[in-house]
Parts: sequence; structure tokens; C-alpha cells
Amino acid sequence: MQITSYTDYALRVLIYLAKSPNNRATIVEIADFFDISKNHLVKVAHQLGTKGFVTTVRGKGGGLSLQRPPEQIGIGEVVRSMEKHFDWVECFDEERQHCRLLPNCRLKLLFAHAGDTYLQVLDGATLSDVILEDIDHMLQNE
Amino acid sequence: MQITSYTDYALRVLIYLAKSPNNRATIVEIADFFDISKNHLVKVAHQLGTKGFVTTVRGKGGGLSLQRPPEQIGIGEVVRSMEKHFDWVECFDEERQHCRLLPNCRLKLLFAHAGDTYLQVLDGATLSDVILEDIDHMLQNE
Repeated sequence: MQITSYTDYALRVLIYLAKSPNNRATIVEIADFFDISKNHLVKVAHQLGTKGFVTTVRGKGGGLSLQRPPEQIGIGEVVRSMEKHFDWVECFDEERQHCRLLPNCRLKLLFAHAGDTYLQVLDGATLSDVILEDIDHMLQNE
Repeated sequence: MQITSYTDYALRVLIYLAKSPNNRATIVEIADFFDISKNHLVKVAHQLGTKGFVTTVRGKGGGLSLQRPPEQIGIGEVVRSMEKHFDWVECFDEERQHCRLLPNCRLKLLFAHAGDTYLQVLDGATLSDVILEDIDHMLQNE
């Protein structure tokens, strides 16, 4: 059980922006810092845009910019927006599931409750909560 | 984010055994009921044995048997025993992780807490809690 690299990279992009001057940076800069594919980041950034986390600033000094201050961006909100699904067990997926126990099994309900609890913990923290001050030094040393 | 089919099948095997006469059934019978690979189930059953959930009964009338009553088998315990890892984010894996934020990022701590909460919910239920009585009818109609 793991969040996708897509969601992982989205969180990294947002953390990087949160600690950048004016909460703004270019995709190339972020891709270089994390040593991850620029093409992959372009897709992540696009979805972050459509979900209302970042805006794209064109022209000189342009790049990505946070749409809201870090203390208004919930980690749970980001994870819920970026993950494709929360099918904790195969039987959550109406198309794939074919377990004969389904109508008479409380496992699905139990896992749904566990999953909700997991996401609620993530809801309790914002971008600014997960950033330690020392990140400033890391970015400034770039 | 989803439990592996390995863990999923382990739970199905245990539920099937819990509702079978003397908590006992053969792998062929269980594989047929769920229409899943017998070879896959042999591996699942082997691990269920090494983890202390089932014993193998040899000879006529043999098969798999629950080692403990269903009300003493925690769902969290099964999931913890069958899942290969609980690396909620890439950075949990010492060998794979290479995120430069790691020393200065609280995301890992947050996800660890969320993951613990998820497993604690599963710890709160036993095999007997997730089985509805109607499963009896399903099995008896086989």
C-alpha cells in the first residue's frame, strides 16, 4: 500500500513552491532539484492546476505558483485530488470485483472505515505543517 | 492504495474456513468457490500456516483448519502478517528513497501516523465480526 509517485511528486512540487520566493518556481528547477523527469512533472503540474493548487505564470520570471498560502493547502486534500482511486480492497471496484462473499461480508465496510480514518489524519495537516525550517537552507544552497 | 491480492485471498480463505464445518476445508474447495488459482492459494495457505493462522490436516477429510477460533483472529493481525511492506510513501523504503527533502520533511511522520491509524481500525475487528450470517446459506448451497 503506497501513494502513487504521481501524488508523491505533487506533494514535492507543492513543498518546493511553498519554500520558494513568492511561492513560485519553474518546472525545470523543481525537476532538477528532485532529479525526476521533467515530462512527468509537467503532467503533475497540469493536474495541480486543474485541481486549484497552482497557477501557471507565463513570461520572464514565470513558472508555477501556489494558488493559496501553504497553511491553506491540506495534505489530505492533495492526496484525495491526485490519487486515481481509493479502492482499499479489490471489491471496491465495481468492474473488477467478483468475490462471491461480497453481499455477505463486512470487510468492505471495515476497510472503508480504515481508509477514511487514514485520510482524516492527512486532513489534519497542511503544507506548512510538514515543512521544517531547515528546508530553507537546502533550497538556498541551490 | 490497495491491499495485495495475496492478503485479499488470505482473508477470503480465513472467512471460508470460519464458516466451514469444524473450521476445515480443502484448498481445491476454496479455490473453486472463489474461482481463483489453486497454485496461488497454495502459497497463501503456506504463509497463513507459518504465521499461525491455519494448520494443514493430512489424510482423508484433511485440508486446512483454523488454528484459533474466528473471534481470536484479528483482521489487522492478518493484514500485518500478509502484506509485504507498509511503505506508505517511497521515502519509507531506505533502499529506494532518494528524495532530497527527506531530512527536513514531516510528510513521512504524517503518513506513518495515518498508516498506524488505518491498521488500528483493522485491529478493532476479528474474523467473526466481518462475517454475516447469510454466508452460511451461500456455503451450504455449494
